[in-house]
Amino acid sequence: MNGSEVKTTQKKYSLQSWSAQKGTDPIPVQKADGIYFWDFDGNRYTDMSSQLVNLNLGFANPVINQAIKEQVDQYCFLSPSYASEPRAELAEKIISLMPDNMGKVFFTNAGADANENAVKIARMFSGKFKVFSRYRSYHGSSFGAGNLTGEPRRYALEPGAPGFIKFFDPYLYREVIEFASEEKATEYYLAKLREQIQYEGPNNIAAIVMETITGSNGIIIPPQGYLPGVRALCNEFGILMICDEVMTGWGRTGKMFAFENFDVKPDIVTFAKGVTCGYVPLGGVAVSKEIAEYFDENVLSCGLTYSGHPLACAAGLATVNYYQDANILENVNQVGHALGEILESFKTKHACVGDVRYIGLFSAIELVKDKTTREPLVPYGKDPEGIMKKILGMLKAKNFMTYSHENVVIIAPALIITNEQLNEEMCKMDEVLSQVDALI
Amino acid sequence: MNGSEVKTTQKKYSLQSWSAQKGTDPIPVQKADGIYFWDFDGNRYTDMSSQLVNLNLGFANPVINQAIKEQVDQYCFLSPSYASEPRAELAEKIISLMPDNMGKVFFTNAGADANENAVKIARMFSGKFKVFSRYRSYHGSSFGAGNLTGEPRRYALEPGAPGFIKFFDPYLYREVIEFASEEKATEYYLAKLREQIQYEGPNNIAAIVMETITGSNGIIIPPQGYLPGVRALCNEFGILMICDEVMTGWGRTGKMFAFENFDVKPDIVTFAKGVTCGYVPLGGVAVSKEIAEYFDENVLSCGLTYSGHPLACAAGLATVNYYQDANILENVNQVGHALGEILESFKTKHACVGDVRYIGLFSAIELVKDKTTREPLVPYGKDPEGIMKKILGMLKAKNFMTYSHENVVIIAPALIITNEQLNEEMCKMDEVLSQVDALI
Ligand SMILES: Cc1ncc(COP(=O)(O)O)c(C=O)c1O
Ligand SMILES: Cc1ncc(COP(=O)(O)O)c(C=O)c1O
Repeated sequence: MNGSEVKTTQKKYSLQSWSAQKGTDPIPVQKADGIYFWDFDGNRYTDMSSQLVNLNLGFANPVINQAIKEQVDQYCFLSPSYASEPRAELAEKIISLMPDNMGKVFFTNAGADANENAVKIARMFSGKFKVFSRYRSYHGSSFGAGNLTGEPRRYALEPGAPGFIKFFDPYLYREVIEFASEEKATEYYLAKLREQIQYEGPNNIAAIVMETITGSNGIIIPPQGYLPGVRALCNEFGILMICDEVMTGWGRTGKMFAFENFDVKPDIVTFAKGVTCGYVPLGGVAVSKEIAEYFDENVLSCGLTYSGHPLACAAGLATVNYYQDANILENVNQVGHALGEILESFKTKHACVGDVRYIGLFSAIELVKDKTTREPLVPYGKDPEGIMKKILGMLKAKNFMTYSHENVVIIAPALIITNEQLNEEMCKMDEVLSQVDALI
Repeated sequence: MNGSEVKTTQKKYSLQSWSAQKGTDPIPVQKADGIYFWDFDGNRYTDMSSQLVNLNLGFANPVINQAIKEQVDQYCFLSPSYASEPRAELAEKIISLMPDNMGKVFFTNAGADANENAVKIARMFSGKFKVFSRYRSYHGSSFGAGNLTGEPRRYALEPGAPGFIKFFDPYLYREVIEFASEEKATEYYLAKLREQIQYEGPNNIAAIVMETITGSNGIIIPPQGYLPGVRALCNEFGILMICDEVMTGWGRTGKMFAFENFDVKPDIVTFAKGVTCGYVPLGGVAVSKEIAEYFDENVLSCGLTYSGHPLACAAGLATVNYYQDANILENVNQVGHALGEILESFKTKHACVGDVRYIGLFSAIELVKDKTTREPLVPYGKDPEGIMKKILGMLKAKNFMTYSHENVVIIAPALIITNEQLNEEMCKMDEVLSQVDALI
């Protein structure tokens, strides 16, 4: 097939996520390498979002590719009731990278089912039923993960299952209250959470589920002391702390897992995306030793055909080893520092930039109509004039590919990006932001 | 690692599905080919269940393996918003194999999320809310698929989401009523379903979800006229008919899809397992042209990171092509016929065999304590003396590997099995059944 046939055929026979199909215009991709990919006409695009913030090592990593091929020569699949070397090794490796309280991994196919199973495990272990999660979060699109989700992508699942309770996230830039300091903000959010726990009944609450750092809803980084405060509330009330590291895990924030930035140890960690960079679908749930031991004698009522998939685990093992062997964290911190400086300069320079948020190579530019009032460039849940789409189009015209959510543009390149590559791409962003300045 | 290290490490660091972990004893698998696999001590086992009824073409199929490797050399992953050749081609191929009313495919990672998305799509399209599914069904373990499920694996998800209604399946062998004929049974079940639809309100019902042939709950084959009758009820009341072909699809029953055995055209078909044989995780939802067109203008509120995964689709394309190129259906029908005769002979010969059910290479032996009273070998939902486990152990001692559910042993070998291989393995089964005869 040529490029236009690929595109036409895919549009004719395959549905695309989160879209009215008439409006979709998928670029047919012929080849890809590192942070770049090419269409069938030889045009090169730069992937500035690591696809869906999963392609942490970029395209065509030779070590992962080789590991997949070698596993293909052994076998691709085994039922979860058998043992395979890649599954055993990857599980051991993951636990070795986690805090010392963690015990075992249950493998899933992706992020949504990792969260589904985390909730099931928390309920089975605790015998409690309610689960807290936050507004402005995304945990997946299946019924359980969607009920955790705190934004419009949840609506298609409503009315949802009982027992899913939402609380507010610490989104300081858009908070109604003006806080004197980050500490005061933390105090406020923890007091409100404590209050809500009390109204819902601490004895009814199995778990609090959080994206360690809110991802697709705008890279909302918790203020100083917030996560340790949540951890303390969990301890006080016997609630499990579940960190969704689907997007933030595997080096994205400059640590292997984002919760390491905040000095907390969760009871359950969910992961996907970066664990294989998406080369083969894989997700999972890591649980504490205490939880793992509970299931020595009690039936783990979780299961899926592809759990512990050998080919996926082989890809995962190569990926995770690569993060360490290639010293990826060092690059994330070093280039991430430069990214932060560039973003700060944008905030100073551009009228349309209300806020920038960044940690490691995980960042967002929040666009506003007015810096003083902070009025968002598009109202919540809407984009009547298609402005955000237009901005992405302006970036695309410069071959800078990323995605947006509400009034926020995500910048999360592959963790292998160099300073030079970053500078080249961020110059394009600078130009586009100047164009947006002129629009508002 | 040697075999015992693989096993020990996996047990130490990875949780196994549907089990108390102390009781698990996973065989470490070193290599695998066709219907056989070997542990690290060189013992050969025969896979008589196609693992979880997904490995339709057995291990180490060279064509699928080659397709995976070639796709690795192009790229493994792309975000669902781009177009790739394997996704385009596989979607086109799948639609070409479906009835002429079908239009497009939405790709997922597995069977559970295929069903999750089918329900979401049915609700969005119809604007209606309730979903019917059946007792004695399994549709997956996530919250939505688990709410569809009509057996104990659902309990961990309760209380579930509202709107999931159960009806009885046509399980003639265990029905309270004795029917004069299959036609009379069909009449009864359709009348009861009609009655239930009326009580729930036809205008509230988005879809009826069924395994075309109930799989893991015991290969329950619908009686003559049943599925066309359900189709007619769906037409009469404007309800969508969703066939879960996760287990029955891709040649298992002697047709490409099981509904072809019954001359019905569903509105939505979910699939997974055999589409790639599990070589790379993949699932999907095929929807009618009418439903597909609805989403031209309306947002499809479904999405997952790995939707339309290029590596998975490349494996799927090779697999589906192989079914046709190697004339797999012919083998299924020919060896399946022999399997049926063997099973009938078991029913005649063995006191413990209450019923046998088979279609293509999809079959079950239902074990009883007493042929006349039909008392099951183990009570529903229990196996206090571990008898079923013991029977699987007796088979395993002969290197015959399969699984059971309640009082039923599943026999569903890879679709490439030869008559000779089948005979050899079924002799072992015959011996074990004689041992069971002596037990009861
Ligand atoms: C934080 C988070 N959790 C869960 C998910 C769901 O993952 P998946 O799309 O693999 O189901 C995502 C996907 O973007 C995510 O960002
Ligand atoms: C009929 C049916 N539907 C759905 C599923 C769930 O598929 P998965 O395990 O891939 O989620 C299964 C799994 O056995 C199945 O047999």
